[in-house]
Amino acid sequence: MAENPGIKRIREVRALCERPSVRRRTGLFIAEGERLFKEIPQEYIDSVYMSASYMRSHPGTRCDYVMKDGDFVKLADTRHPQGVLAVVRQREYSVSDLPEGNLYIILDAIQDPGNLGTIIRTAEAAGAASVIMNKGCADIYSPKVVRSTMGSIFRVPFIYTDNPEEAVNMIKKAGATVYAAALEGESILEKRFEDKRAFIIGNEGNGISEDVLKLADKTVSIPMAGKVESLNAAVSAAILMYR
Amino acid sequence: MAENPGIKRIREVRALCERPSVRRRTGLFIAEGERLFKEIPQEYIDSVYMSASYMRSHPGTRCDYVMKDGDFVKLADTRHPQGVLAVVRQREYSVSDLPEGNLYIILDAIQDPGNLGTIIRTAEAAGAASVIMNKGCADIYSPKVVRSTMGSIFRVPFIYTDNPEEAVNMIKKAGATVYAAALEGESILEKRFEDKRAFIIGNEGNGISEDVLKLADKTVSIPMAGKVESLNAAVSAAILMYR
Repeated sequence: MAENPGIKRIREVRALCERPSVRRRTGLFIAEGERLFKEIPQEYIDSVYMSASYMRSHPGTRCDYVMKDGDFVKLADTRHPQGVLAVVRQREYSVSDLPEGNLYIILDAIQDPGNLGTIIRTAEAAGAASVIMNKGCADIYSPKVVRSTMGSIFRVPFIYTDNPEEAVNMIKKAGATVYAAALEGESILEKRFEDKRAFIIGNEGNGISEDVLKLADKTVSIPMAGKVESLNAAVSAAILMYR
Repeated sequence: MAENPGIKRIREVRALCERPSVRRRTGLFIAEGERLFKEIPQEYIDSVYMSASYMRSHPGTRCDYVMKDGDFVKLADTRHPQGVLAVVRQREYSVSDLPEGNLYIILDAIQDPGNLGTIIRTAEAAGAASVIMNKGCADIYSPKVVRSTMGSIFRVPFIYTDNPEEAVNMIKKAGATVYAAALEGESILEKRFEDKRAFIIGNEGNGISEDVLKLADKTVSIPMAGKVESLNAAVSAAILMYR
């Protein structure tokens, strides 16, 4: 039977929305909205919060806590909530867990939550085996990133690491060639990529840092007409993954 | 000599930031931030606003109105303004003005400002001759879209039209094949595009509307692995433009 969450649980949910440190400490995060909710693997759901009217119109769906429609807005992270939100357990991968495949993405300090989520979503669509992020990347468990992944966060294996070298070595041992996307590399229009490949995508403003760039086997560039100085990071990642 | 803008001009700038109807009525829009400011063609600048410290550190740059640093925040559209903002005259293209080329983009009700701006930016980089938007698209002159274009708004020819058919007919007459990006078309991995081509990209949630879809010569799809239902609109546009 769904009960009222009370002020203490509401505060906990808000802290999970707003504070990376709380997400790290508890190993939990928030997935809000009907579509995301439906994509959460059951075994990762910690608890489910619904507005009264959402609960009424979804009989038989798990609901642990129910709130008046007007109160649900205070719980939710979006301005016009759909009435459902779950607290979800984070899934931990280590380098040795990461599945092998033909395509990998390595992200160096991707800062914009929308870019990060969109890259995860595109990576799943392009069939990437895994995504490696260094600690300079935005928090994948922030509500904005989670929403931007459109559910791919529950399916694409990923790690955050202080030591991307270890992960890149694993990828190279699995036979992949590591390409860094930079402004001065060989044009992708002239290049045929190896079948097993990894792409490094750098920070929105500064590109790939020296430490990460030296992990690459080759540097490639996306040619740009006009006076464009760079492409959006999620756009660059998509063009490379689908090349 | 730069003067204080006074409350009336500050209100006008704020209205240009916030109200599409004011932008339409006046034919003006706002470009904020150092980088965008440098990319505005001189003949389109209506007036330039600076914070006192920005003006001091940029002697010799045109400045019509100057404000105390603390007051500039009230004028600006971003939370951490760089101290420079211009009121810019909109450039009007008609269908017959639009340059011909090998690549065109047609946008059907692209709603997210970040997506719209990113598509304009990618279109310039990919060498698109022009961008056609129907009236369901977000306002290209909203501050968020302008920022997301990273300056491409000043260089890529575009029109808004109630009647995309007229523009598409112009493109077809110029020899281009019009491809609609949809979920059920022929896979782009198997397809070779014609050298002169146009891509139609649909709304983020609903795809391409029937009215617009019937303007296409062919329908193509971007194959997706995993459980991804669709790609981000700016990502789809980029993959197609760079194919």
